[in-house]
Amino acid sequence: MDRADKPLALTLGDPTGIGPDITLLAHQARMREPIPPFVLLGDPELLAARARALGLATALEIVGTPGAASEVFAKALPVLPIGVAGTVVPGHADPAAASAIQRSIERAVALVLAGDAGAVVTNPISKAALYRTGFAFPGHTEFLGQLAGLKPSDAVMMLVSGDLKVVPVTIHIPLKDVMTALTPALILQTLMTTARDLKRYFGISQPRIAVAGLNPHAGEDGTLGREEIDIIAPAIEAARGKGLDVTGPHSADALFHAEARKTYDVAIAMYHDQALIPFKTLAFDTGVNVTLGLPFVRTSPDHGTAFALAGTGKASPRSLIEALRLADAMRACAGDAP
Amino acid sequence: MDRADKPLALTLGDPTGIGPDITLLAHQARMREPIPPFVLLGDPELLAARARALGLATALEIVGTPGAASEVFAKALPVLPIGVAGTVVPGHADPAAASAIQRSIERAVALVLAGDAGAVVTNPISKAALYRTGFAFPGHTEFLGQLAGLKPSDAVMMLVSGDLKVVPVTIHIPLKDVMTALTPALILQTLMTTARDLKRYFGISQPRIAVAGLNPHAGEDGTLGREEIDIIAPAIEAARGKGLDVTGPHSADALFHAEARKTYDVAIAMYHDQALIPFKTLAFDTGVNVTLGLPFVRTSPDHGTAFALAGTGKASPRSLIEALRLADAMRACAGDAP
Repeated sequence: MDRADKPLALTLGDPTGIGPDITLLAHQARMREPIPPFVLLGDPELLAARARALGLATALEIVGTPGAASEVFAKALPVLPIGVAGTVVPGHADPAAASAIQRSIERAVALVLAGDAGAVVTNPISKAALYRTGFAFPGHTEFLGQLAGLKPSDAVMMLVSGDLKVVPVTIHIPLKDVMTALTPALILQTLMTTARDLKRYFGISQPRIAVAGLNPHAGEDGTLGREEIDIIAPAIEAARGKGLDVTGPHSADALFHAEARKTYDVAIAMYHDQALIPFKTLAFDTGVNVTLGLPFVRTSPDHGTAFALAGTGKASPRSLIEALRLADAMRACAGDAP
Repeated sequence: MDRADKPLALTLGDPTGIGPDITLLAHQARMREPIPPFVLLGDPELLAARARALGLATALEIVGTPGAASEVFAKALPVLPIGVAGTVVPGHADPAAASAIQRSIERAVALVLAGDAGAVVTNPISKAALYRTGFAFPGHTEFLGQLAGLKPSDAVMMLVSGDLKVVPVTIHIPLKDVMTALTPALILQTLMTTARDLKRYFGISQPRIAVAGLNPHAGEDGTLGREEIDIIAPAIEAARGKGLDVTGPHSADALFHAEARKTYDVAIAMYHDQALIPFKTLAFDTGVNVTLGLPFVRTSPDHGTAFALAGTGKASPRSLIEALRLADAMRACAGDAP
């Protein structure tokens, strides 16, 4: 498969959120900055209506295959049509859109697996809206893993912005379940996947990996919790045995200031907020969410559907633009490798 | 009690750490910037030896009462003598010093309670070293609370730096114990103490308080954990019933970026790292630790003993200077009120 010259497959996301807005704005931004060509898998009529709402004179062009999109991109926004049922009102989540949201993601994965798209970039979805229609995944990451035929723990979420890359070992589970979800095997697998994909997609041959502890002060030698001793340190040891450059467990509160960030290529966090709090504190709306462990590149903006901003012209495409660029850079780094 | 013109009582901290170094450097800084007069409760010989090690020509003057310190301060570092047993080697924790460390803290509290000192500022201690000698408190905050005759939950830790004030409801406990330690009553008490002391010591008459959730995305309506619904929201409701301006529970990862910080005066976190990660990410070595709920003002630098830097001249007094200044500002704001 030669994906390097293929356009990126951009999913629709929740059409009642800001996905259509930021898609239009990211395409428009090509006049001012390099935007890698993408094809939107979504509803052209809906997109045209949103363009009118935003006062944008964006030309849309329906394409039958992603291959046509690269030529089209300079003059029009290429759309591979996936119809949305019902009438979409920006800002009003609508269960009728759920089918199109899912089909858009499935189509993107099929295209990239077939070598027709270079990578998958996803617009934000609202899980609350999807849950009501039977969507059974905690988020994109888990859904994409299943579409790619992986076990749930194979797909690894990494957040990227500026000089910070951070990977949470557990993600969308209650905090009380983190202690039991963490195992040496899960942490080791996360470390292996992260190291492999930092080499493959970021060109870092021997990534320096810093692992956070779970408890205050990384447990202070067991007086403030034993997970560091019983679970995290053994995983670090095992990873070192496999040749990885891993340090820790570190006090999580000392791991994310500017000086500390220089000492590693990626930080491994034990739970959602341990990764997301420092990440969003530093980069609230410029961050990119990357899924590692998949047989293709997938990125997304690191924000939600922002229903209140849909159709208002106030949504910023910055995070989506960063997601498109990072996906392009990652697949270029990987070259033709799967 | 008129504390406003009394010097600050500065404790020794662990003498094998950087406490003596930053004390000397903070005193020296009075030549370049305003430093509120303080008296060190510690060993003058030890301090003289550390000054020699650092190449500082600091004059020391032994005083019998804090009252004398204010006059002395401009020309010499006032020391109220508390002898340290044994030979102190910088960088080498020594159980022989434990007694002096504790007595220094106890003396500081006695002085401020008697109205002879304006506030208590503490140098860093090493809990690991103190534990070995029978010290039974998780940290300064809890020890000071007991010295002041309070229940453990009455003393509230607040971290202050720049535009961020953040209070963890639970502090030095294993993460797995947080879920059971959190109760509506504990959260409510923390909110009440915080609101009262922000008014008393910071002059914020109606503080805007933002409360973080515990789980990812603040539990997402219960799908990612129920503590927000069962514990946190009831505490917020109760606090509103008492006239407090409280919002939340908020997603913790969206609470600490620059725009979000403008929307509140203080953030309330549910556990240690939820407060300390954003705090140290933004302000690694300029932060100040404040204890609220005490019958006096207490601050401290927000860093540890840094044994490896003791006696090397590499320790920065910045956080201690900020702690001294904040203590001075807080007691000035409170005036003569207890």
